[in-house]
Amino acid sequence: MKKFYYQISTEYRGQNYFGWQIQPRGKTIQGEINHALEKLCKSDDLKTLGASRTDSGVHAKAQVFKADLPLELPLKGLVDGLNSLLPEDIKILGAKASTAHFHPLRDSKWKRYNYLFTDKVSPFSRDLIVQAPALLDIELMREGAKLFLGTHDFANFRCMGTDVPTTTREILEIELKELNSQGPWGEFPYYCLEIKGTGFLKQMVRLMMGSLWNLGRKKITLDDLQAAIDKKKVGKVGPVAPPQGLYLTEIQFA
Amino acid sequence: MKKFYYQISTEYRGQNYFGWQIQPRGKTIQGEINHALEKLCKSDDLKTLGASRTDSGVHAKAQVFKADLPLELPLKGLVDGLNSLLPEDIKILGAKASTAHFHPLRDSKWKRYNYLFTDKVSPFSRDLIVQAPALLDIELMREGAKLFLGTHDFANFRCMGTDVPTTTREILEIELKELNSQGPWGEFPYYCLEIKGTGFLKQMVRLMMGSLWNLGRKKITLDDLQAAIDKKKVGKVGPVAPPQGLYLTEIQFA
Repeated sequence: MKKFYYQISTEYRGQNYFGWQIQPRGKTIQGEINHALEKLCKSDDLKTLGASRTDSGVHAKAQVFKADLPLELPLKGLVDGLNSLLPEDIKILGAKASTAHFHPLRDSKWKRYNYLFTDKVSPFSRDLIVQAPALLDIELMREGAKLFLGTHDFANFRCMGTDVPTTTREILEIELKELNSQGPWGEFPYYCLEIKGTGFLKQMVRLMMGSLWNLGRKKITLDDLQAAIDKKKVGKVGPVAPPQGLYLTEIQFA
Repeated sequence: MKKFYYQISTEYRGQNYFGWQIQPRGKTIQGEINHALEKLCKSDDLKTLGASRTDSGVHAKAQVFKADLPLELPLKGLVDGLNSLLPEDIKILGAKASTAHFHPLRDSKWKRYNYLFTDKVSPFSRDLIVQAPALLDIELMREGAKLFLGTHDFANFRCMGTDVPTTTREILEIELKELNSQGPWGEFPYYCLEIKGTGFLKQMVRLMMGSLWNLGRKKITLDDLQAAIDKKKVGKVGPVAPPQGLYLTEIQFA
């Protein structure tokens, strides 16, 4: 049967979902999207594949997925139709026609993640940003962040759970920015760790963030961090930072 | 038995509560606070009185209440103790010693409310701001807002439910501002209707907002709005705007 292929971008708030990928034990973003597509197409002969398996509680400002559908839909109808069927914390941003060859995982050139934390979480921001550990040396964290640049074996910055042929990844850019929030939910300074890389392991960004926090509060040294980046046997040097600070913000395809 | 009196300020996110005031049918802000105070004081011989009865779903950046407690507590212990016992969407901002004579309703000189709306609600902002009606004439709304200034009988801008001796209230300042959000939840322009008044009737701000929307989309004229402000028999000239756009932002005591 003839298939029609679409490349669709979406943003979502992760707090009420067990991550992107469909799984038996609870609601997922992909599950909600598939369900909406089934209603729209009046068929369950379809599939989706995301460019990133965001974890439970993690947000996306720009996730991309491929949809293989059994019928052709006008792009505006596809976007508006999905948005009318999806819950309010998932929004389709756009859709374009694609091909059978497009593979959102293999074809992504790089991805950018932002991790947000602040000294002052309020009732209005608590599920979108993380309370920072006390007494962080931000300049030291900036020095530490630079150690991640380039190609390394990130075996000490991953969580088991997904089989991967290699734990080597390349970090293209990393920056710890000081920003200011302005808006309904309050005005306050916050930090944003921006990381651009060719690929990421499970919980890699959150383990990088947790390690930089440990560095910033002097629980580990720059040498400890360098050793964890250089040598597989060192083990983890920081906690997994909480999911609500993490946003998938950009994906570049080849 | 000797009582100790405190004036306490709090901020809260309204979405999960049936408003400020204790009532039988569901969770309220006051109910949660009383419950926490009972634990802290190991007694239920206490009472609280808020300066404003915010409705179901309405937020506060600066609600104030009086607490009559059966024991004396250090101010920092009171604040930290309450925050450790309260849910994450209610936060105590500060406390000071008060007197038996203080009455947060009678002693408030003026209150300020902000109502927020925008052309572009996202999954990250949806419970903190309201999607604006299409095609609003903002300049016309600014003209309309000025009609509310001064002392008027707001009988056409109230919802029944609370007995009040008079429906006359004074609006001291009103302004429709264009602002920009910056932060984790996205960058987007939004509008803020700021209203400062000596007192407000039930749902008065939300009915003023709904009427200004109707003016902005040319469903009513400036004359219709003026008539509703001048004459009791005109009736409502707009819908009750949704609660998630409304914030109690400031209370000034005499």
